[in-house]
Amino acid sequence: MSRPTNRRQDNHKIDWHLPSISSSASAHHMSRELFVLTYGALVAQLCKDYEKDEDVNKYLDRMGYDIGIRLVEDFLARSAVRKCRSYSETVDVIAQVAFKMYLGVTPSVSCSNTTENEFFLMLDKNPLVDFVEELPAGRCSLCYCNLLCGVIRGALEMVHLAAEVTFVQDRLKGDDVTEIGIIFLKKLEDKKHKRKK
Amino acid sequence: MSRPTNRRQDNHKIDWHLPSISSSASAHHMSRELFVLTYGALVAQLCKDYEKDEDVNKYLDRMGYDIGIRLVEDFLARSAVRKCRSYSETVDVIAQVAFKMYLGVTPSVSCSNTTENEFFLMLDKNPLVDFVEELPAGRCSLCYCNLLCGVIRGALEMVHLAAEVTFVQDRLKGDDVTEIGIIFLKKLEDKKHKRKK
Repeated sequence: MSRPTNRRQDNHKIDWHLPSISSSASAHHMSRELFVLTYGALVAQLCKDYEKDEDVNKYLDRMGYDIGIRLVEDFLARSAVRKCRSYSETVDVIAQVAFKMYLGVTPSVSCSNTTENEFFLMLDKNPLVDFVEELPAGRCSLCYCNLLCGVIRGALEMVHLAAEVTFVQDRLKGDDVTEIGIIFLKKLEDKKHKRKK
Repeated sequence: MSRPTNRRQDNHKIDWHLPSISSSASAHHMSRELFVLTYGALVAQLCKDYEKDEDVNKYLDRMGYDIGIRLVEDFLARSAVRKCRSYSETVDVIAQVAFKMYLGVTPSVSCSNTTENEFFLMLDKNPLVDFVEELPAGRCSLCYCNLLCGVIRGALEMVHLAAEVTFVQDRLKGDDVTEIGIIFLKKLEDKKHKRKK
């Protein structure tokens, strides 16, 4: 590594025309295009590493889980949301606060009519596929954004909520919408309690 | 994939206390923590795939290059910067507009006293290592953020500027600061011109 010693501070200041988007950016903000392209590179790498789509999906979910269990601290610290009293409130927080904060979009929420623990986040626009026109050739079972499911699952587990999180519809697979399903399972405390018995 | 049919739109609206950071977010904005953790997952994956640090560094640089040649379009479209008339102006745009836009930070710029084509971006705070305390064990030659060098190199190439971009100092390696060096090479047009001769 070269460590240059001869240098001067560049005092030549130019009044750049900064777009308004940047001037309002806080210390935590960034433009998501770099993220979207980096995520694409990650998925491409996993597709090189794993032959089967299910393995890539699993791996993305597991990576997401590891991210979720760390991200939840940041989320709770910065969001100032109060403790949720119901599954419905929890899903609203995920859609309206977490998605908005981390991806800049707000999915709409619906819930199952038949069960009280099943919810759906519908993404009108999925920012993670901004630069993706279609799934890679021969990868028709790939859940391209499966990392997100893992992130939600990991974050929920850290607030003692076990859940199954999966893509139930995906525009990249020809569906009309992109939709994440969240099924809350028995509460973790209950499970632990049962084990002790 | 289960495609539930029984569901209702959740009209239960709650007035969440949204942090100010979110309310000002534009359509392109996101919080960078998810990106930082996802980038960490990418580096970890490459460390699994490649034994040698130099190979990981090369691969990160190549991935970054592929991202840079795509990101530059988005940058030019959204930044509204004018054509730069000198290397110095170009580096100022990278630091003050591009870094601000994509990573939410503004590195300080210095240039070599001895050559006119060598510049340095000093990152007081490197957002990409927010959750990283040290390099992974046995990975002391890893350029953790090498993707950024590739991005800069790729983007510059798209505006007909060939450059060598490397980390010259890195806090993760025990240096006092983190610093990216940019050496502009002979203009691409000149090279092409020469080849034709």
